[in-house]
Amino acid sequence: MTASTTSHALDWIAVDWGTTSLRAWAVAADGSVIAQASSDKGMGKIGRADYEPALLELVGPWIEGASGSIPVIVCGMAGARQGWKEAAYRSVPCQPVAGEALTPVETADRRLTVGIVPGLCQAKPEDVMRGEETQLAGLLAGRAIEDASVCLPGTHSKWVSIDAGRVARFTTVMTGELFALIGGQSILRHSVGGSGDREPGPGFLDAVDQAIADPASLTSSLFSIRARSLLAEASPEDGSDILSGLLIGTEIAACRPYWQDRPVHLIGAGPLVARYAAALQRAGARTIVEDGSGLTLAGLARVRAGMKEIAA
Amino acid sequence: MTASTTSHALDWIAVDWGTTSLRAWAVAADGSVIAQASSDKGMGKIGRADYEPALLELVGPWIEGASGSIPVIVCGMAGARQGWKEAAYRSVPCQPVAGEALTPVETADRRLTVGIVPGLCQAKPEDVMRGEETQLAGLLAGRAIEDASVCLPGTHSKWVSIDAGRVARFTTVMTGELFALIGGQSILRHSVGGSGDREPGPGFLDAVDQAIADPASLTSSLFSIRARSLLAEASPEDGSDILSGLLIGTEIAACRPYWQDRPVHLIGAGPLVARYAAALQRAGARTIVEDGSGLTLAGLARVRAGMKEIAA
Repeated sequence: MTASTTSHALDWIAVDWGTTSLRAWAVAADGSVIAQASSDKGMGKIGRADYEPALLELVGPWIEGASGSIPVIVCGMAGARQGWKEAAYRSVPCQPVAGEALTPVETADRRLTVGIVPGLCQAKPEDVMRGEETQLAGLLAGRAIEDASVCLPGTHSKWVSIDAGRVARFTTVMTGELFALIGGQSILRHSVGGSGDREPGPGFLDAVDQAIADPASLTSSLFSIRARSLLAEASPEDGSDILSGLLIGTEIAACRPYWQDRPVHLIGAGPLVARYAAALQRAGARTIVEDGSGLTLAGLARVRAGMKEIAA
Repeated sequence: MTASTTSHALDWIAVDWGTTSLRAWAVAADGSVIAQASSDKGMGKIGRADYEPALLELVGPWIEGASGSIPVIVCGMAGARQGWKEAAYRSVPCQPVAGEALTPVETADRRLTVGIVPGLCQAKPEDVMRGEETQLAGLLAGRAIEDASVCLPGTHSKWVSIDAGRVARFTTVMTGELFALIGGQSILRHSVGGSGDREPGPGFLDAVDQAIADPASLTSSLFSIRARSLLAEASPEDGSDILSGLLIGTEIAACRPYWQDRPVHLIGAGPLVARYAAALQRAGARTIVEDGSGLTLAGLARVRAGMKEIAA
C-alpha cells in the first residue's frame, strides 16, 4: 500500500458498496490498482450518517496529503433509497453505465468528490438492479461484445439481455434468498443442511431435471423434501441438494428465452457458479463462465473513463 | 361444563393436538359435547414430558370422580416423531382412519386411556399428513361421499383425492408458510403488509390469473412486487394481495388434476377459505365450502365408533 513512483500516484477511488460489504480500490491513472481494502459495513448495517466515516476508514490512508479532490466512484446499494443518497434509476433500454449520470454526494471531507452510479429500472415487467449494471459495463468494456445474454447468480439472480451494447431487458429471480429462507427457516430446515460449498450429490441434477421438466410444480414439490427425510431417512445434504436443484432448475426454466438461442455469460465465482453452469448445461444451454471479481472494477473504470471524455 | 343428567355422562374425550394449539372436547355416549377447552400448548412449544400435564390441565375437571378409565382419542402433531409418541403412518391408499390403528400412550394418571390417530404417508411422490386424515374421516362420516377431491388450505395446504371411500393420493403445498416467510422476512417485507384478514383488492385475482396462465414463473415474478413498490409506490396491501395471489394461483395450477373433473370440497373457515374459493372459481373449478371446525370432532367420533365396533 505504497505509491512511491509517479506513475502510481492515486488518480481515483473505486467503491463497490453492497448490502453486506464495502470494497474499495485505489487506482492509478494508468488503471493499475495501488491498494485495496474492504469492511463489513454494507448498506444493510449502517445509517446515512455512517457512510462517510465508513469510507474514510478504508480510504483515509490513501488520500493523506492528496492535492485537490480525489474522484470516488461508487456502485451498488449505497445508491438505494435507504442508502447514502438515492441515485435515481436509469430506464432500460440503455447502456449499462453512462459517465455523465453519476449522482453527486456532498461530503464533509473536501478531499473526496463522490459520485454514485445509478441502477437500472424496467417498466414492464417492473424490475430494478443496482450494482450489476457496473459488472455488465465491465463485461462489455474488455471485449467486442455487442449482443449477449448474461446470468449473475446470487441472492437475487439477474438475467440480462444485451442487444447492440444496450441492456434490452432483465429479470430478477429470488433464488438465493428463497434457498436461505426455505432451507433455514421453514419446516424444511429439519431436512436441509450441510455446507453449500461442497460438491453437490446426484440429487442436485435430478432435481434440476425435475424442475425443468415441470417448473410449475415448485411449491407443490418442496414438501417432499421433508417427507423423504421422515419416510426414507434422507440426509440433510441430500435435502439441500434437492432444494437447490428445484430452485435453480425452476429459475433456468423460467429464463429459457435468455439462453435458448445464444450462450450465457455466467458472472461470478466459486461453488454457486459451478452449480449454475452444471444446471444450465443439463438444460442444454451453452455457458461462458466469467470471473466476476474483476468486472465490478472494470465497470467502475469504464465510468471513470466516461467522466474524462466528458471533461475533455 | 356440568354433566348432571345420565344421558350426558362423560363417555370419551376428543383431542386435536396441533403444532400451535391444543383443543379438547368432553363427549357423551350419544355424541353430544358436554364441555370443551383449549390452550396454546401445541406440539411446537412443549417437550415430551409436558404432554400429560398439558392435557390434564384441560381435562382434569372432566374426569374428577370418573369410574374406570376414560378413552382419550388424539389426532394431529402429538403423533409426530418430536411429539408425545410417534404414531407410525398408515400408507395410502387406505381409509382416512381405522378404529384399530390407534397408537397407545402410557400415562401416569390411570384415569386416562390415550390413543393417537396415525397420520398417512404416500410413497411416490413422498408425502405425509397428520391431523387432516381425521378431518377427511369427518367429511365422509356425515354423508354418502365415496369419491371426492378435497382441499384443506393452510400453512401446508393439502389436496386429497378420495376414491371409493379411500384416500387415493394427496399433495402438500407449502403456500401458507411461503407467504409468511417471503412476505415477512425476505426483501419483499418492505413491500408487503396489512392484515391478511381484509377483503383482497383487485390485485389478488389479477395475480391468480397470472400464476394460472404461467405457473412456472413464480420465483421470477416475486421480485416485481419489490420493484413495483420502488417504482410505482404500490401499497403494502397491494403487495400482499399480489404475493397471496401468485402463491395461491401457482398452487391451484399445480393441483389441476384434483379439480378439473370434479368439484372441490374446501375445508376450513374465514378469509383464507374465501380467498381459495374465489381463486378456484376464477380458475374454472367448482367448489363446495365445508365448515372445518366440526370435521375434526366428527372424525374423532368416527374413530371412537370404530373402537366400539371392534370391542363389540
